[in-house]
Amino acid sequence: MSEEPAAAAGVYTTNIVCGAPVVLNRQRTPSDRIRAVVINSGVANACTGERGMKDAEAMGSLAAAVCGGKDDEALVLSTGIIGEFLPMDKIEQGISAAAVKLGNSEASLNTAARGMMTTDTVEKIAGRTVTLSGREIQITGMAKGAAMIGPNMATMLAVIMTDAPLSPEMAQTALSEAVDDSFNCISVEGHMSTSDSVLLLANGQAGGEPLEGDDLATFFGAFAEVCVELAKSIPADGEGATHLITVEVTGCADDHSARAIAKTVANSALVKTAVTGADPNWGRIVSAAGYADVDFDPKGVTLHVNGTLLYKDGTPVDFDAEAVSASIRDNRDTDILLELSEGDVTSRFWTTDLTAEYVRLNADYHT
Amino acid sequence: MSEEPAAAAGVYTTNIVCGAPVVLNRQRTPSDRIRAVVINSGVANACTGERGMKDAEAMGSLAAAVCGGKDDEALVLSTGIIGEFLPMDKIEQGISAAAVKLGNSEASLNTAARGMMTTDTVEKIAGRTVTLSGREIQITGMAKGAAMIGPNMATMLAVIMTDAPLSPEMAQTALSEAVDDSFNCISVEGHMSTSDSVLLLANGQAGGEPLEGDDLATFFGAFAEVCVELAKSIPADGEGATHLITVEVTGCADDHSARAIAKTVANSALVKTAVTGADPNWGRIVSAAGYADVDFDPKGVTLHVNGTLLYKDGTPVDFDAEAVSASIRDNRDTDILLELSEGDVTSRFWTTDLTAEYVRLNADYHT
Repeated sequence: MSEEPAAAAGVYTTNIVCGAPVVLNRQRTPSDRIRAVVINSGVANACTGERGMKDAEAMGSLAAAVCGGKDDEALVLSTGIIGEFLPMDKIEQGISAAAVKLGNSEASLNTAARGMMTTDTVEKIAGRTVTLSGREIQITGMAKGAAMIGPNMATMLAVIMTDAPLSPEMAQTALSEAVDDSFNCISVEGHMSTSDSVLLLANGQAGGEPLEGDDLATFFGAFAEVCVELAKSIPADGEGATHLITVEVTGCADDHSARAIAKTVANSALVKTAVTGADPNWGRIVSAAGYADVDFDPKGVTLHVNGTLLYKDGTPVDFDAEAVSASIRDNRDTDILLELSEGDVTSRFWTTDLTAEYVRLNADYHT
Repeated sequence: MSEEPAAAAGVYTTNIVCGAPVVLNRQRTPSDRIRAVVINSGVANACTGERGMKDAEAMGSLAAAVCGGKDDEALVLSTGIIGEFLPMDKIEQGISAAAVKLGNSEASLNTAARGMMTTDTVEKIAGRTVTLSGREIQITGMAKGAAMIGPNMATMLAVIMTDAPLSPEMAQTALSEAVDDSFNCISVEGHMSTSDSVLLLANGQAGGEPLEGDDLATFFGAFAEVCVELAKSIPADGEGATHLITVEVTGCADDHSARAIAKTVANSALVKTAVTGADPNWGRIVSAAGYADVDFDPKGVTLHVNGTLLYKDGTPVDFDAEAVSASIRDNRDTDILLELSEGDVTSRFWTTDLTAEYVRLNADYHT
């Protein structure tokens, strides 16, 4: 909820099959007068046809009314089972109850972050403060993870708020760019949900004219950091995961190539299970890069895992396999650095390992 | 080994990082005078530089010599660890020993099919006999699976032999087309190996002129069946797999769309674990189709699992979940039929479920 109408921007799932809230928010962003974001978990309101759209609109109207806003001045996020209708009586009661509770802004952030959790084990909150031409600007965000829920969908939701003065267009540009290098660079199982959404609300309460020039650049840097921190926290809390894997690819000819290779390595079940087993398996990593559908010179490939050189200029090198294995086993973070010799473009992708526990959680939940 | 020089064709991995045998075979096919295919398991001879190329050539020469052929009249397949050199003394002894044993052609097919196995649990052999204008034509093939091996690579190898008279160009066309709808439509974990290869040898011993017209079409139909049967046998024997999943997508606008959707659904970890858990989870299937990067009308989607309608025209329908769950649990085969309303193009993709046993095998083998 915002005391003032806020500039709002959104980035949404590109899944052809998407939830009613995604359709609604797409229509409403960018905006210069959003007062509230209302979130429910349990039912995703996807695959629900016309009734789903009416329910999403009603949910938004209720939330907007609480802030004294008009019907269309709220955004709506739903996560949970797809194919079921929202229990509108509960939603109505919940919005009234939440409105009362959200008096204290510090507590309310934690409450909201906890309220949107599904199979997440911890609240995901990140923030930065920057001083721009004498104005102190707050950026605070929360997210929920891309882990399985109920009997249906994996959904990633995030809402980032700032008191910076931003035009709707500026907010949309900042969000789209930051999401591209953060929320679009994570995966748990690579299954894109029907509800994935990231929202930015900027209500301008820090005062002054919309940011520009160096101030805008500084703001963007801090905002991008918040997005990366929130995005990484999602695979870090992945279901059944024992490792957060960072795949960094350098030396690429262009952005598309770098992203494709980083994503392909990160999504390889063989790379993920190698990390689960603390196995410094350069073959799985290099060969995954090889099928990313990107042209590169295999003789120019060099690989480090957790800082140790495993493979140089297209050939494996001698290394202390025991030591690298121990460094994987004993740390929650695994760093894969793949260097190509095609150019100077870099990309990063974050993912989890793949564990028997993950399979158990996703295969057996319904029994 | 062929008593006569055979027309030979090959289709190989598109992985940028590929083994020396793949480089060698690419140079030698299509050909009109191949006498032998020599296969070793244990060492894949990939990422081995110039010495690897020399070893592959030497291996081919040894095999060709056994048949009285010239140095370059053999093809070479290697599967196993990548980054290690072939033990050439053992290879030499092995080729001599194999040449003696391969007298009886019936026994030798089984012996060869067993010899190329790595983590496969059964030999994979398929065959057809067709009579074309009075000539009886044999088609026989063998394959090894895309399961993990040693500490490194998943490799899919297949060799199909026929006594049909085919020109090298005709053999290559037939192979490329058949592979597109068979070996290119399977996955176990979606990790393309550095050594994947499918070879066709046609030595013309059935006699007569090269096939053409209706005879060629009939031959191609039988040959395509052999390829599909061999291809399906690979995920059917996937490591730790409890189900062979067939994803059939109909009603697509074009071949690319149909393939992309079938492959995306088949490679979804959430779809695979749903099958492991005998869960008729239409949401995971429909939403996987939605992120295949293909434009289609979600309101035109209908889904059957094992013959039961779960989802019609974009909306879930009532169905007996217990009965569908039982049909998944009690059968090794799971059939997913996804109908779109964009056109009349169909595609199929075969894969395995994803089990805790798969993770255990791929995460823990090195301990």
